[in-house]
Amino acid sequence: MLRKKKLARGVAIVGGGLTKLGHFKDRNSKDLFAEAYTEMIGSVDKGIDPRDIEAIYIGNFTNDFFVNQGHWAPIISDLVGHVPKPVTRTEGACASSALAFREGVFAIASGFYDIVLVGGLEQMSKRTTEEVAEGLAMAASPYEVATGFTFPGVFGTTATAYFAKYGASREDLFNVTIKSHNNAPLNPKAQFPMTIRDFMNARIERCRQKGEPIPNWKDEKDFLRDPVANPPIAWPMHLFDCCPISDGASCLLLVAEELARRFTDVPIHVAGIGQGSGYSLHAKENLTSFEATRAAAQEAYEMSGLKPEDIQFSEVHDCFSMAEIVHLEDLGFYKPGYGYKAVNEGQTRLNGPKPINTSGGLKTKGHPVGATGVAQLYEVWVQLRGKAGKRQVPNPNLRVGGAHNLGGTGGTCTFTILERR
Amino acid sequence: MLRKKKLARGVAIVGGGLTKLGHFKDRNSKDLFAEAYTEMIGSVDKGIDPRDIEAIYIGNFTNDFFVNQGHWAPIISDLVGHVPKPVTRTEGACASSALAFREGVFAIASGFYDIVLVGGLEQMSKRTTEEVAEGLAMAASPYEVATGFTFPGVFGTTATAYFAKYGASREDLFNVTIKSHNNAPLNPKAQFPMTIRDFMNARIERCRQKGEPIPNWKDEKDFLRDPVANPPIAWPMHLFDCCPISDGASCLLLVAEELARRFTDVPIHVAGIGQGSGYSLHAKENLTSFEATRAAAQEAYEMSGLKPEDIQFSEVHDCFSMAEIVHLEDLGFYKPGYGYKAVNEGQTRLNGPKPINTSGGLKTKGHPVGATGVAQLYEVWVQLRGKAGKRQVPNPNLRVGGAHNLGGTGGTCTFTILERR
Repeated sequence: MLRKKKLARGVAIVGGGLTKLGHFKDRNSKDLFAEAYTEMIGSVDKGIDPRDIEAIYIGNFTNDFFVNQGHWAPIISDLVGHVPKPVTRTEGACASSALAFREGVFAIASGFYDIVLVGGLEQMSKRTTEEVAEGLAMAASPYEVATGFTFPGVFGTTATAYFAKYGASREDLFNVTIKSHNNAPLNPKAQFPMTIRDFMNARIERCRQKGEPIPNWKDEKDFLRDPVANPPIAWPMHLFDCCPISDGASCLLLVAEELARRFTDVPIHVAGIGQGSGYSLHAKENLTSFEATRAAAQEAYEMSGLKPEDIQFSEVHDCFSMAEIVHLEDLGFYKPGYGYKAVNEGQTRLNGPKPINTSGGLKTKGHPVGATGVAQLYEVWVQLRGKAGKRQVPNPNLRVGGAHNLGGTGGTCTFTILERR
Repeated sequence: MLRKKKLARGVAIVGGGLTKLGHFKDRNSKDLFAEAYTEMIGSVDKGIDPRDIEAIYIGNFTNDFFVNQGHWAPIISDLVGHVPKPVTRTEGACASSALAFREGVFAIASGFYDIVLVGGLEQMSKRTTEEVAEGLAMAASPYEVATGFTFPGVFGTTATAYFAKYGASREDLFNVTIKSHNNAPLNPKAQFPMTIRDFMNARIERCRQKGEPIPNWKDEKDFLRDPVANPPIAWPMHLFDCCPISDGASCLLLVAEELARRFTDVPIHVAGIGQGSGYSLHAKENLTSFEATRAAAQEAYEMSGLKPEDIQFSEVHDCFSMAEIVHLEDLGFYKPGYGYKAVNEGQTRLNGPKPINTSGGLKTKGHPVGATGVAQLYEVWVQLRGKAGKRQVPNPNLRVGGAHNLGGTGGTCTFTILERR
């Protein structure tokens, strides 16, 4: 009964919007979604009448318990003047809006709708760090939480297992962080548009102002080794290995492939969609791999007919530096145990052969969890259209990009392949 | 650009499971889902290898805040041995699992999957009534909650507006309650398998045992008029106008139409799917109608080519007795202002021309919110297969049934039409 997975009807992206990410104490997730939506409407090259949008899918994780308001579908519907048309919320923790994207694809591929808006929203910064840690722990497995694990702990465990198995060390993780922060200032929407050098200079300046001793770091790695500048969170995950708490919203406009050129001459096609589920830490046979990522990748490759080497660049879920390395391997970009070597060699830099997280990644761009999946796809869409400005991948033949989104500690994963044809 | 909505590929139901609904203090929502899942596996006439299920969609509303655990997709995936295949949670308050059903339909209709499990789960009874009221209020609009409205208040307002507009009264609502309770003892899964007569007798027996004066009710309506037996909640909604707090889980197995007869000789086809969103009370132009229901109905009728008069019986979201009457009108079964008259005439009884809530409805069967949408569809599936036992609709030509699910105070609505061909 098994057969190659494919869609009855192609789907393309013809518009998108993404807020700047950061801490916006005076704005709520509705405000943010309205901003992303407005950018999306303006982004459609040949214009879109918003009334032609037939359905909406939105991803959100924390509003139920951080804002004490559930059932966001009708709120969003009312916000963008969409009543009485359908709106559906999907939730898969940090992968919530990648699920919204996938359901939007299915809704069009099924033949039922032609034009669907997908997006995500999250407001986190109004809560204390402790509240956020407790809230996000609800996305982990109950077995993990019961044994004292929160997110940094789970990925710290992944790291120690990886180090033991492959001989890597914290020094190798530094290269992920440095690479992502090198991309950050090139992204005007990044929460931390700063290189590690910028952080070093800022700290030196502060010491100078306060009359404190000036740190004497040799280089970026030396800064990251400093336990004052980069304190441990859950060893070996230090502060600069961990993504921040962020507010933000994102959206993309999907249409049936045969209609795409009514909206733009540069539609970006959905070549492959994959999703998987994964075990909790206690049940994993292999601590240095995420079966959800592997399953998602397999499904997306199978549908697209593409191979890992065909993915010219990708957003990869870097909630922690360690996660990026393991996912590079699970996505098939590098063999197990070679992900950190590829990073060390600079292969994943913006000008390398396989740029990863050109947006700066979750670490520097920010991680408003429910908005992240579509925010990653927005980056790939922007890059494939050649509109990424200073962070544009320097490849005149850019055709295929990937976006990998992980929910929780590995429980849900999506991998999506976009293509410019 | 507008066109008739249809699916590229048909979808049929070939299996289902539903727990008994009620208060199960010693069981959690995982336990309940396992029970529904096990019934589903056993229900497939020609058998199903669970490993052939390609994807799962689950609806849940309250686990985030009642159980302090989010991200239920991987938990369910692990529970039923589905890792690493995809699981997606949908949330639309009380319509959460009807959304799961709809996404399952799209996933198959898109051509991507052939076999998909959809379901819902909820555990509510471990929380106090106050906690449940507060939690469910999160499904209402923020404007409603800010002005002191909870669910009974919103539907009480609907009722007073309806009474004023059409000359109906509480006496008319009694007929909804009496009708639903007449169906309840015929459903072995009902939370309250009792007629109103049974309640009267139980109370008389209790008075006798306690040596209290024996009430002298003339009939069922007299009992419902008694403010001690049937106290007000939010006038004119009294206790017997309101559905209970329930635990339960439900699931259905969906397959591509062309594969259905591999699993059963009696597949039940998805003839129409509709979904809508609605305004909050403060923005409604018409207090006696739900635009989300009207939009959902229109979409489902349009796809199916069927008319309201073709729907031989239906589950209709009766979170409150008033809701059932208004929805009978919004679904087009009766003209505005005639719903209560149809109920009074007995048209919606099990042996009437348009049986409504043969299951007993939310009022008597129970309302585990995230499980309800699929539980309603389960009832229609069972009826169309002729397996409803004592509550089987007495029509040898039963071919078409509907299921209407409302989320929140009207924010999300689905209407689904199933057909035996």
